[in-house]
Amino acid sequence: MSHLNIAILGFGTVGKGVHHSIKSHQTRLEEVLGKSVRVVGILVKNMEKHEQSREDGVLLTTNYEELLEIEKLDVIVDAIVGCEPGRTYLTQAIEKGIHVVTANKEMFAHHGEELLALAKKNNVTVGFEATVAGGIPVIQTLKQLLQVNRIQKVEGIFNGTSNFILSSMRKDGLSFEATLLAAQENGYAETDPSNDIEGYDAFYKAVVLSQLIYGEKPEEKSTIRKGITEITADYVESAAELGLRFRHIVTLFKGETGIQCKVEPVLISTEHPFYQVDGVQNAVSIETDLVGNVQLQGPGAGRYPTASAILEDIIQISRPVNSKPAYIEYQEDAKPSSKYVLFSKNGNLDIPYDITVLARFSNHAAVVEIEEVERIRLGIQDVVSFELKGNYRHTVKKVTV
Amino acid sequence: MSHLNIAILGFGTVGKGVHHSIKSHQTRLEEVLGKSVRVVGILVKNMEKHEQSREDGVLLTTNYEELLEIEKLDVIVDAIVGCEPGRTYLTQAIEKGIHVVTANKEMFAHHGEELLALAKKNNVTVGFEATVAGGIPVIQTLKQLLQVNRIQKVEGIFNGTSNFILSSMRKDGLSFEATLLAAQENGYAETDPSNDIEGYDAFYKAVVLSQLIYGEKPEEKSTIRKGITEITADYVESAAELGLRFRHIVTLFKGETGIQCKVEPVLISTEHPFYQVDGVQNAVSIETDLVGNVQLQGPGAGRYPTASAILEDIIQISRPVNSKPAYIEYQEDAKPSSKYVLFSKNGNLDIPYDITVLARFSNHAAVVEIEEVERIRLGIQDVVSFELKGNYRHTVKKVTV
Repeated sequence: MSHLNIAILGFGTVGKGVHHSIKSHQTRLEEVLGKSVRVVGILVKNMEKHEQSREDGVLLTTNYEELLEIEKLDVIVDAIVGCEPGRTYLTQAIEKGIHVVTANKEMFAHHGEELLALAKKNNVTVGFEATVAGGIPVIQTLKQLLQVNRIQKVEGIFNGTSNFILSSMRKDGLSFEATLLAAQENGYAETDPSNDIEGYDAFYKAVVLSQLIYGEKPEEKSTIRKGITEITADYVESAAELGLRFRHIVTLFKGETGIQCKVEPVLISTEHPFYQVDGVQNAVSIETDLVGNVQLQGPGAGRYPTASAILEDIIQISRPVNSKPAYIEYQEDAKPSSKYVLFSKNGNLDIPYDITVLARFSNHAAVVEIEEVERIRLGIQDVVSFELKGNYRHTVKKVTV
Repeated sequence: MSHLNIAILGFGTVGKGVHHSIKSHQTRLEEVLGKSVRVVGILVKNMEKHEQSREDGVLLTTNYEELLEIEKLDVIVDAIVGCEPGRTYLTQAIEKGIHVVTANKEMFAHHGEELLALAKKNNVTVGFEATVAGGIPVIQTLKQLLQVNRIQKVEGIFNGTSNFILSSMRKDGLSFEATLLAAQENGYAETDPSNDIEGYDAFYKAVVLSQLIYGEKPEEKSTIRKGITEITADYVESAAELGLRFRHIVTLFKGETGIQCKVEPVLISTEHPFYQVDGVQNAVSIETDLVGNVQLQGPGAGRYPTASAILEDIIQISRPVNSKPAYIEYQEDAKPSSKYVLFSKNGNLDIPYDITVLARFSNHAAVVEIEEVERIRLGIQDVVSFELKGNYRHTVKKVTV
């Protein structure tokens, strides 16, 4: 079996995720590609820190020139941050005829256009799925699955950190500052969070999308980039009273005066697709002329979602048609959380004491937690039950019984 | 420029949509395919009904044999319903080396496996994106964009009619019977609605997905197929009181005893991705081992969403890589509905009389409708405003002011 040889630039969260996923999904990669995928080199900043990651057959180095000299290197995965040295590294790789896959949004927002042009000239591929919305296949959906459709407008939640902060403020009732601090302590926000909370990161992603869709960057003078730092606990609480939730939204479309890009906090009603996109989730809404509105949602960051985007990009380099997706058997958690909503068909709902009642709102309705659904039918008379999906917080509501 | 020659079977909603979209998107198709797409034949049942659709160069016929004899026919689009004659027609086409693209879920659920095998033997493609969730690219996402990822579980809202009925019952407070009648009158439900409301249609889609993901149909003995006919206005109202919504959900996964498939009404909390999937919308949630959970939403049926799925399938036949998606300039509606939520920074919120107040909940918060956002800043003191996305129904809530 032949090999696809890969080098990884940077061995932090993303680099390690790619390395690990290539190992854990080797069989699958062989099935799809018809060849095995090997990591043959890793570029690190600090040799000592990564000594223990040393493996036979893998060049661990701090010297990029050395990495580029690896024989038969097929793909370079860029898992470092910042415009430089990323841009220089990828330029050199492309000029050597090596495919590149990048997760570096800042660099790609600034230099994507030139790298893509250079890649075209050198007949190699640049994968950049991981630069926007992590594991959600936004880029490939736009590139491959909506080719006939004309794109009218794109809206998205593209920054997990700011979405996490806004969701947490609502759930915990804390101030912006306290929530940010907690997010930093839990690793959901960086020590210097401005890239996320001021909307720069979301803006970079908008630029990547703009270049993909319109072939150019958004107009500078009509670009709005507002962060979430001015959202107070009061606003969040008042919004919640109105049934509304804050989201930090990117809007991108081509108007009469050029490409418009807005990054700003807006309020979302229960009827909007972004209403339940909480925490570090990302979402994108694509408006097209034929399908109408299509939305994609999923994890916008994290080790394995990002690794997934990179691996799927590697697959796209040779674009094999895989006639059968992979599956694995689905196992419920050992103790499944089985919540049911019960309605009595007539009269009172008598719930046995050994069934946990999560919420009870009237004589004839309740939310219960139960392991054996049969217990409901056997233990309660004249009842109808429905499984409950999604988290349910049993806030006490005043109801006249 | 060379041509891609297409024949359409059936000239109802879907067939006409395909025909019209090929015309309206000709330039785009040429751009992407490098050839023009021509409709060269249409199979109809009743010649008289379609006399006025007659065009030069297009064979309008009731005789399938005649259609098959068209010279250099590249693709047959199947826009008829029911297992027969669809299966026979497509079998003959494939045996003649013609690519096929189908929107016929019932036929494809029953005979997809054999058609795919036959197509492989004859080296042609079978496109079936339109059989599941209309214009949402579920099939291609599973086939092409999640190739490395292993699929653990799929959940979906796959029937627009039953989702429309459940949403309408909640919004209008009417009984199942009254809502169904209204849906029938408005063309959202068929005269014989059992295919939709009893879950057969959703089940066919689950079968198509099962074959795509697992290579086989769900186990018959562990399949549950429950309709929505037993959901009463009372249940819907009680659920709403609990903050919950009914959805008719398909669940598909491979368990210890084989492939499990459930089609049944469940209740959905505000935290679940399907909470706001109202009306004829479809949605699918794909659980994978690398990305985690990815969700897709969009219109599940309709002339142009279905035509979109078929056209994108036609594109996939030659799988060209399109480096630049199409876009069109986005135009806001002539009179945009600009809703804003206002919070007073300190003290009272004094709203001028010429601004429409949609809801007012306390001294310091309100939802208003306004044309010029500048009016807010100029007309109201100490105010902060946020754009409101999504429909907002101004129900009167009792709030102590």
